[in-house]
Amino acid sequence: MTEILYPKLAVIGCGLIGSSVIRAARASGVVGEVWVADANAEHRAEIETLGYADRVFADPAEAVEGADLVVIATPPRSIAAAAAACAPGLKPGVTVTDTGSVKGGIGEAISAVAPTAFVIPGHPIAGTEYSGPGAGFATLFQNRWTILCPSERQDADYLKAVERLSAVWTALGANVEVMDEKHHDLVLAVTSHLPHLIAYNIVGTAADLEEVTQGEVIKFSASGFRDFTRIAASDPVMWRDVFLMNKDAVLEILGRFTEDLQALSRAIRWGEGDRLEELFTRTRTIRRSIVAAGQESAEPNFGRDRKE
Amino acid sequence: MTEILYPKLAVIGCGLIGSSVIRAARASGVVGEVWVADANAEHRAEIETLGYADRVFADPAEAVEGADLVVIATPPRSIAAAAAACAPGLKPGVTVTDTGSVKGGIGEAISAVAPTAFVIPGHPIAGTEYSGPGAGFATLFQNRWTILCPSERQDADYLKAVERLSAVWTALGANVEVMDEKHHDLVLAVTSHLPHLIAYNIVGTAADLEEVTQGEVIKFSASGFRDFTRIAASDPVMWRDVFLMNKDAVLEILGRFTEDLQALSRAIRWGEGDRLEELFTRTRTIRRSIVAAGQESAEPNFGRDRKE
Repeated sequence: MTEILYPKLAVIGCGLIGSSVIRAARASGVVGEVWVADANAEHRAEIETLGYADRVFADPAEAVEGADLVVIATPPRSIAAAAAACAPGLKPGVTVTDTGSVKGGIGEAISAVAPTAFVIPGHPIAGTEYSGPGAGFATLFQNRWTILCPSERQDADYLKAVERLSAVWTALGANVEVMDEKHHDLVLAVTSHLPHLIAYNIVGTAADLEEVTQGEVIKFSASGFRDFTRIAASDPVMWRDVFLMNKDAVLEILGRFTEDLQALSRAIRWGEGDRLEELFTRTRTIRRSIVAAGQESAEPNFGRDRKE
Repeated sequence: MTEILYPKLAVIGCGLIGSSVIRAARASGVVGEVWVADANAEHRAEIETLGYADRVFADPAEAVEGADLVVIATPPRSIAAAAAACAPGLKPGVTVTDTGSVKGGIGEAISAVAPTAFVIPGHPIAGTEYSGPGAGFATLFQNRWTILCPSERQDADYLKAVERLSAVWTALGANVEVMDEKHHDLVLAVTSHLPHLIAYNIVGTAADLEEVTQGEVIKFSASGFRDFTRIAASDPVMWRDVFLMNKDAVLEILGRFTEDLQALSRAIRWGEGDRLEELFTRTRTIRRSIVAAGQESAEPNFGRDRKE
């Protein structure tokens, strides 16, 4: 087992990510005691039943008492408020991080209420379309990326705290990358936020058609639509928050997407086959780069096809 | 083993679908001899090496000689021409079908050149992002849908031919559905063609960004983007043909999608969180219907996550 990096972990908000952090941290042995706070009484009961935590609280300030590491895993727009609620209980020198999908302004907001803490915003890029304490599992972060967005502090204690938090994520199975929060939000707008927005939108469009029944959409979903439905089943509250918080980057990328789509639509209308084929050939090479980078199996995914 | 339904099968165009038809048909025992025609000399050599066919030809008319069932599995826009090339060799009473993703006008085009054949257009809704003779596998059609679009002929011989062709697809593992070609093209525009168009478009948009490197897009693709890259790696020529052939239905559905996307963009710009959450909650129920219909596992797909 790995050495204990933080004797006492407090997790605020115990949904898919929070519960996976606990399971993975316990499995890897990098934390000792685990205390949890969750605002939802049903969740608290579920956490007790699942035996994740040594103690479960409604009040974040109680849960963080004596903690060496605080992980705020609430929906993105609640993170600042959760940090403020933790503040009275935080001990000096505690490391406070979060797991939100949008990072702009988060570090500043947490630092404002926790001036004696080492504040290191974070984002584990992992998830499923399931939510709640029961959805967590210990291997969620394995071979995934976790992005940390430390502040510009350069004092030795802060840098040591960043190093220690990185070591925790590594122990949880993740690859760690450091970038500034603005760039994080732009990269994620492309690789995550826009894909989710598009998926939500297309599933909504399909549901509203009169000429094609919902039964038919479901029946023939294997032809491409199904991948979108999985993405569009992600947590509604979390994603509402993501789009509201990362509005500028999302609208910027969405604007480019829409422009490109208009051009594609025009090419179809005017029968410009060469133009279509050129784009479709170009996009294929990107897939091959992903396969080559080892992010995906190079083999046709027969196993998955069979299982579905 | 099943009884032989067609003593002699001819497959015209031996890519992913054609080669899978041969492998599945041989595995299920519903055909006797298999002859193949492919316009591509490299493919022909590959087919010989793989030992799929009893005989391999460049000329479709030679390949269909004496055949009881002809399956045209060329790219969609080549189907009519392939049927015309087969015509001199077709024996009266042969069943001619195809596997194209767009069905409008196909039955009429084949019937025009093969007046003594039983023409039953078809579309197996199955595929991977891989192409060519080597990409085929015997289980591709298992638990997938195959849609047949028979003509309005009601004579007993024709109906018997439709029944026999259905039995072949059932033996290949598929569920068979019958619908008219116009409705087929609208249903597939929603469940398949628009999803592919959107996927191609978003991957293209991401590739053109200056602020985010292609390396970053690839690195963080697991956050949603990756599912799109797989779809956007589908065969460029086939998909060019699909959009050109099913132009009207695709532009109609694309128009609705774009309208909905504008509304969603506006909701983000004006911070209408309730509206976003309402849509995201509604789309989640569609996923649950798909899971309930048994089209997808209800369990979090841990196995897949781990494998990737």
